Amino acid sequence: MIIEKIAESKFNDSVFDSKVFGKNFTDHMLVAKYKDGKWDEPKIMPYGALEFTPAAMAFHYGQAIFEGMKAYKNENDEVFIFRPDRNFERFNLSAERLNMPTVPEEIFMEGIQTIVDLDRQWVPKNYGTSLYIRPTMFATEEAISARSSNEFMFVVLLAYAPAYYDKPLSVKIADFYSRSAQGGVGFAKCAGNYAASFYPTQEAQKDGYDQVIWTDSIEHKYIEEAGTMNVMVRIGDKLLTAPTSERILNGVTRDSLLTLAKDSGMDVEIRPVAVQEMYDAYKDGQLKEVFGCGTAVVVNSYNAVGFAEERAPIEILSDEESFASILKGKLRDIQYGLVEDPYGWRVKVGK
Amino acid sequence: MIIEKIAESKFNDSVFDSKVFGKNFTDHMLVAKYKDGKWDEPKIMPYGALEFTPAAMAFHYGQAIFEGMKAYKNENDEVFIFRPDRNFERFNLSAERLNMPTVPEEIFMEGIQTIVDLDRQWVPKNYGTSLYIRPTMFATEEAISARSSNEFMFVVLLAYAPAYYDKPLSVKIADFYSRSAQGGVGFAKCAGNYAASFYPTQEAQKDGYDQVIWTDSIEHKYIEEAGTMNVMVRIGDKLLTAPTSERILNGVTRDSLLTLAKDSGMDVEIRPVAVQEMYDAYKDGQLKEVFGCGTAVVVNSYNAVGFAEERAPIEILSDEESFASILKGKLRDIQYGLVEDPYGWRVKVGK
Repeated sequence: MIIEKIAESKFNDSVFDSKVFGKNFTDHMLVAKYKDGKWDEPKIMPYGALEFTPAAMAFHYGQAIFEGMKAYKNENDEVFIFRPDRNFERFNLSAERLNMPTVPEEIFMEGIQTIVDLDRQWVPKNYGTSLYIRPTMFATEEAISARSSNEFMFVVLLAYAPAYYDKPLSVKIADFYSRSAQGGVGFAKCAGNYAASFYPTQEAQKDGYDQVIWTDSIEHKYIEEAGTMNVMVRIGDKLLTAPTSERILNGVTRDSLLTLAKDSGMDVEIRPVAVQEMYDAYKDGQLKEVFGCGTAVVVNSYNAVGFAEERAPIEILSDEESFASILKGKLRDIQYGLVEDPYGWRVKVGK
Repeated sequence: MIIEKIAESKFNDSVFDSKVFGKNFTDHMLVAKYKDGKWDEPKIMPYGALEFTPAAMAFHYGQAIFEGMKAYKNENDEVFIFRPDRNFERFNLSAERLNMPTVPEEIFMEGIQTIVDLDRQWVPKNYGTSLYIRPTMFATEEAISARSSNEFMFVVLLAYAPAYYDKPLSVKIADFYSRSAQGGVGFAKCAGNYAASFYPTQEAQKDGYDQVIWTDSIEHKYIEEAGTMNVMVRIGDKLLTAPTSERILNGVTRDSLLTLAKDSGMDVEIRPVAVQEMYDAYKDGQLKEVFGCGTAVVVNSYNAVGFAEERAPIEILSDEESFASILKGKLRDIQYGLVEDPYGWRVKVGK
């Protein structure tokens, strides 16, 4: 691995005062190029612009995938990344579906270790804050021909992630737009899935909602994801979530919360969740919680669900009563090293 | 419009000897930037690389759309673009669905007129060859946050398009993978649609086919598109094609061929075409032709169709008998200015 350090670090403490996610990049980025069927030696260099032709295939045909994970610092200034092995595995699953080369472990995992270690002063210590890690790969061949690219770039970016204020949001259940098709790319963390979701989300916002709960594209009868997150529903004291499938992202936070829920003795069911079942539960006063979960925000509780023409308010429970809050607390306590990590989820960075 | 001409043209006659599509770019490109809710003045400059940060949102969330059209030169060195108004209209429909700003007519249409005129020596004269025009727009804001970008770039690239050798291809009818969902982005010419199609196409190639005929994502019972083209089927002497929908691109070549077919007195039906109907026709010896149509190749005839486990050969008819050949000839004669253009499809470039 080639390491070209920045001449002078841009870091200063005011970085951690920012409230903006995804805009405050650290000193370095990692870049590896794929050409002629192989990856070149990855290079860590100062973060900044590179030269790309506007004919780079990613701009035209969208072969682009990414991952998101976080690094945390404990009281002893030790830095940990949460479950990077899961993101590595999913990244290469996405790569396969998008017909892109896989990224070898020594580039992905060692690359992330090295760059996070190099920029470790950028990892904040405050509970709720973290350093966001964004591995991405996109097509760079200079060609406007609708076929797979022969050249790709793998990049790792790091950006400060401020504490996310968990304001409850409202969600509209999709009854027209869809996020993914049977036989499509819904399970892959690919660029096109996100682009396709922005307009329907904006339309939901015009109707007074913050986000969309995506449903199956065939009949809109079963819920699949919420915004860019997995979605969980609590009916009575039962926690429900859809099984992962070719249409649903296999979320790391989803998996972690389900593990914690089961090990806490919660009643968990992983099965298709019908919109009608949610509506009936709402009418019976049994729709206790609906929340999204993902790396960026951990958990986002919803205080209203839009069923067709009916807006159903959901009372936000106290931190002691709310499954979302209980699970979020348990997860973050592990992430921040405040409790034991019986699952081996924390991976230490550097020595 | 700012025009910064190349110091010395890269053009030489050997450009027209190339057999490669989408790699031979002309002297110039047009670039316009969108920021703070408005487009800046478009600039024509020498074609080449620009600086982009790897955090540019197009690489992560795929807000990217494009168009494809062609310029032709007649014997009098007059240059014409084929139906650019249709591409302009579709470009902005794609922009809306992808939650991107629309591009004003004076940037899109005048921009294309100006750059094609400037690079008119790159427009070839040989029948079958042309200059390919690629308008594209993608998200450039430096942010890794899953939301719509606030900054975009509109670019027009020009590349020599060699004569396409119309080798018949074989196609497999999709029975697992899908191109687009109801409520999705299939009708938009957006980057993600292409990326999602490459792996299924490669899988079809492993089965001995060149391309995929996409079917509805619900039951795979009705055909929708072929490869990256619209698809037409001739059963007996009837020409069939699926109606455009939110899942199917509203192709300019498709529309032009349908117009020519109707005006030639062909029996044309625009309605859902069932896979079973095609199979039954094949068994009855009535499946005369299946072909894709699009700007890049005009028409691509298929000599075999894969129905589930059965590979159905289709005899390629003579140019006199083949609807595909007849329609292709009529269309190209208009494009190359060999016959009258009663439809007003040709738009002259410059004086």
